[in-house]
Amino acid sequence: MKTRHTPNLATIALACMVVFIASKAQAADPLASWNDGPPKKSITEFVAKVRVKALAPQHPEWKTKEPFASLLKGDLKGALAGGDHAILEIIVATHAGMTTAEFEQIVKDWIATAKHPKFKRRYTECVYQPMVELLAYLRANGFKTFIVSGGGIEFMRPWTEKVYGIPPEQVVGSSIKTKYEMRDGKPVLMRLPEMNFIDDKTGKPVGINSHIGRRPIAAFGNSDGDQQMLEWTQAGSGARLMMLVHHDDAVREFAYGAESKIGTFSDALMAEAKKNAWTVISMKNDWKVIFPFESK
Amino acid sequence: MKTRHTPNLATIALACMVVFIASKAQAADPLASWNDGPPKKSITEFVAKVRVKALAPQHPEWKTKEPFASLLKGDLKGALAGGDHAILEIIVATHAGMTTAEFEQIVKDWIATAKHPKFKRRYTECVYQPMVELLAYLRANGFKTFIVSGGGIEFMRPWTEKVYGIPPEQVVGSSIKTKYEMRDGKPVLMRLPEMNFIDDKTGKPVGINSHIGRRPIAAFGNSDGDQQMLEWTQAGSGARLMMLVHHDDAVREFAYGAESKIGTFSDALMAEAKKNAWTVISMKNDWKVIFPFESK
Repeated sequence: MKTRHTPNLATIALACMVVFIASKAQAADPLASWNDGPPKKSITEFVAKVRVKALAPQHPEWKTKEPFASLLKGDLKGALAGGDHAILEIIVATHAGMTTAEFEQIVKDWIATAKHPKFKRRYTECVYQPMVELLAYLRANGFKTFIVSGGGIEFMRPWTEKVYGIPPEQVVGSSIKTKYEMRDGKPVLMRLPEMNFIDDKTGKPVGINSHIGRRPIAAFGNSDGDQQMLEWTQAGSGARLMMLVHHDDAVREFAYGAESKIGTFSDALMAEAKKNAWTVISMKNDWKVIFPFESK
Repeated sequence: MKTRHTPNLATIALACMVVFIASKAQAADPLASWNDGPPKKSITEFVAKVRVKALAPQHPEWKTKEPFASLLKGDLKGALAGGDHAILEIIVATHAGMTTAEFEQIVKDWIATAKHPKFKRRYTECVYQPMVELLAYLRANGFKTFIVSGGGIEFMRPWTEKVYGIPPEQVVGSSIKTKYEMRDGKPVLMRLPEMNFIDDKTGKPVGINSHIGRRPIAAFGNSDGDQQMLEWTQAGSGARLMMLVHHDDAVREFAYGAESKIGTFSDALMAEAKKNAWTVISMKNDWKVIFPFESK
């Protein structure tokens, strides 16, 4: 893994994440960047349903009282927005032959200075505002949020907390092997030129199980690499939310066609979404704002 | 990895854990099972110091005002209690050829019924009450707590939240490989007869880096397998707390001698503790109560 990839927008503005319900909290509706429509409705309904279920044992009267009764019965149905192909570039931004601390510094320096060629902004500014809002909204309602990316885990951890509110221990990604060594009497972890784990496709459920040890109840993807994560999420019992972000806005971001070289959102994935009733989010139609630097 | 080990007390009553400071919270002193002495003092001083440091930016007057000034200057010194050899049996309780869900059920059934041969109690009752108090105390003061065990990660996760208040995603351990498969149209993770990771000795810092992605500021061990975790913890900057639980109470638990077959707490480890000023906790002298079922 001596190769060096330049991370692109899709890596930084990663939509892929999984969530778990934790403790409860209350929040005002903060999904300001989302247009009203089926995806936004799916999200708020899912959250309401999970919260109702979580609180239901303390409220036996909800079994017959509306709207709780319907929510508990579970009529949540993700609507499908149409769309084309879209892509997530999977990057394992790995450097071997240095310590983890040295690599972290390289990432921090890079992220502090490098700019996106199209948007002329730092990559950490090129995040999807609706996804940032979604993460905050879920956490405010008692969910625990994770990033599960095909990208290099040690490439993401130095900045995910600041950008997404997700701490290093809640980041799952691809990795190379490391080795504990003493260097000048000080312990270091050396990065070895050997792949440890590829967190993509069937690797995503494996990575989730390894790092998190429980099944998500909601998952958001944006590429073929996310299909198995969504399947794995859906196969659990109780309320579930599976969504795919579709890159279909050539003006504000990119429209990933089948010919795109920077990722894959295949016809097969779209067919799976339809078959499994996963909600497809149209960036063009469902998001008022894509990037924080746009005027709303 | 077809072998099956019967987990012993040391696995369940695991002392090994690492902690991180997170948000702040306040708690009354809950270390009731600890005798007054250097280890208890080291813990409370460390927590006070970290909290003072965490709050210091909002309190510039603390730089000159006692006791904050001394704490900020950092005179925390772990006292060393004497002791003998002690042991942690490292168990990789792995079964292959079944799904993760099936394995989880086996663990749950076992943990609900099996009893410790000496104490005639369920293993989940044979936990170290002072360590349970310590975990709660640290969390109440804004720390985030993890278990980092040589034991099998999927053996621990089904019960650590109930017993230690540590959720599955904050458990690090040894693991076998798993594979994502469709079985009767449903996705499963099959456990393969192939080792994935051994979370022991030099593996512990590797596992911490992989799962948690940041360096602990405190670590508690009880065997030779924990030495590198303590070194790794100590090598960071700022306030640090490194402790070793010493099994030296033959009456209430076990006194692990050099001849013991169930783990290793070598002379070399004791020498390392001394050299590095790690606090050695004498179970006999420092703990009023070892198990929750003892009368205090």
